Amino acid sequence: MLGQKLVAALARAGALGDRPISHLALVDVVDPAVPAAAFTVDARRGDLADPAFASSLAASRPDVVFHLAAVVSGEAEADVDKGYRANLDGTRLLLDVLRAGQDGEYVPRVVFASSIAVFGAPFPDVIGDDEQLTPLTSYGTQKAMAELLLADYSRRGFVDGIALRLPTICVRPGTPNRAASGFFSGIIREPLNGCEAVLPVSDEVRHWFASPRSAIGFFLHAATLDTGPLGHRRALTMPGVSATVAEQLAALRRFGGADAERLVRRQPDETIARIVAGWPAAFDSRRATDLGFVAEGTFDDIVRVYIDDELGGRVGEPAG
Amino acid sequence: MLGQKLVAALARAGALGDRPISHLALVDVVDPAVPAAAFTVDARRGDLADPAFASSLAASRPDVVFHLAAVVSGEAEADVDKGYRANLDGTRLLLDVLRAGQDGEYVPRVVFASSIAVFGAPFPDVIGDDEQLTPLTSYGTQKAMAELLLADYSRRGFVDGIALRLPTICVRPGTPNRAASGFFSGIIREPLNGCEAVLPVSDEVRHWFASPRSAIGFFLHAATLDTGPLGHRRALTMPGVSATVAEQLAALRRFGGADAERLVRRQPDETIARIVAGWPAAFDSRRATDLGFVAEGTFDDIVRVYIDDELGGRVGEPAG
Repeated sequence: MLGQKLVAALARAGALGDRPISHLALVDVVDPAVPAAAFTVDARRGDLADPAFASSLAASRPDVVFHLAAVVSGEAEADVDKGYRANLDGTRLLLDVLRAGQDGEYVPRVVFASSIAVFGAPFPDVIGDDEQLTPLTSYGTQKAMAELLLADYSRRGFVDGIALRLPTICVRPGTPNRAASGFFSGIIREPLNGCEAVLPVSDEVRHWFASPRSAIGFFLHAATLDTGPLGHRRALTMPGVSATVAEQLAALRRFGGADAERLVRRQPDETIARIVAGWPAAFDSRRATDLGFVAEGTFDDIVRVYIDDELGGRVGEPAG
Repeated sequence: MLGQKLVAALARAGALGDRPISHLALVDVVDPAVPAAAFTVDARRGDLADPAFASSLAASRPDVVFHLAAVVSGEAEADVDKGYRANLDGTRLLLDVLRAGQDGEYVPRVVFASSIAVFGAPFPDVIGDDEQLTPLTSYGTQKAMAELLLADYSRRGFVDGIALRLPTICVRPGTPNRAASGFFSGIIREPLNGCEAVLPVSDEVRHWFASPRSAIGFFLHAATLDTGPLGHRRALTMPGVSATVAEQLAALRRFGGADAERLVRRQPDETIARIVAGWPAAFDSRRATDLGFVAEGTFDDIVRVYIDDELGGRVGEPAG
């Protein structure tokens, strides 16, 4: 989802910062959709953890690499080998094939999508930029290991890397999925589309959010940012909005009215509640903010982005 | 060096805690020396990063695995691929072959030698147990990645792992080596043996030390410890002594007299000074101490261990 939105944004802009884009190689495990763009788009289907395929990607010596590919949390937990292969080996192989092209002058920018899943309870109520990595999932472990590798390869001058720890992206467009975090989007998206949504946790649950639009902004900013001020610490927690489920529902009511809120059905799920209890509630993402990364200011802003970008603005402005 | 001392300690004790040892498989990249022991010792030469070899090791379903094998800091920095292969892939393969034998009941204890090289400047003067991992070498990065992997595999119940971040081991017996940290041992060992030693940094440099005897104690304690209180945080910074070079030299003088101290030749080396400046000076290793890990209390104690264990006590007691 983010990959498609990023590609669309690149196609629209035709440039990264003040540098026009001449060529885009688009890679996925399924056949990627090719956008209309003023530059050449080379779409490829393949497995990043396959050395021959990874090498073929580096042959064009890209100036910027966005690495968003991942086996998601639930799948990485269910299939250990698949998760490590995609999220760790795939990332390492990508960095190694880029390193193979390194000649002292060619140092590609690598923007890596990490996750706040690198943090696991117990942690402070507000997690600062110096918090230790304590993942409680294999997915979070793989992201944390990849962050360390990216920092080492950047320190050595093989790549110029930056890892973005993305908040939970909300409101995700599309149909409900089975991710444990899916309900955070579902309880907004489904009612705004006149459909019922299940809420498996209590109203007091607090979590950390940013819109898909903000996420694309993070990637584009990271691609052109001066990485000097990062030093050897190449991972940044992205800004976001800390909101409780109750605050989410209040925003839903403001945009969709009481009818929308009534479509949220409370159906407690112990398993999901337990997983979510180990997730961060809020961050002090000062380092990223100081470097110019920007997210929404309130959960209302996040809902408004969904309405503007996915519903063509077709839901009324908040009533109060 | 630590491996040999650990094997000798196991041979002497014939048991781990109250469980007698029946069988020891001894693995190294060179032919391991086989100690005299009351139990079976099976010495093997091989590469842990070779899947067939690693599998053969797990076939005997060891109850306890001590994993001390590593490509050291300088070599891992000089040869990127060799370092990642040995320190990351070797560790991962070892964990994976142990996992392959896992059947819900077989959960081997894995004691992994990590390092304070997982921390890199800037950091606080005293580094606590919650400090983030900020390695500034490929070696430290590989150790940090292995710590994360060990924690994830322990969380999943594949192994019962514990990672020990060892202080710089001092006084190392044997001949001078080319490790950047070598002088910390050299300035004690060489003069006590009547030989000249080179000191490449200033007297104000402060670092974190434990004796080889303490390190062996850490490993043996970690093998039998109840890992329950560790929760999912399986890496522990080991206790040690924080001492400056000046304090080291004062201890040398107390044991070896002014003649010994005169054998220390100051020969500043900018490269070594720069490397060492990024190393930790002191830790608050409360978690490990609370769990029963014990090191020396003063640098004099560290020198005394060297004299007792390596010189047969042949140097006089301190003069003051």
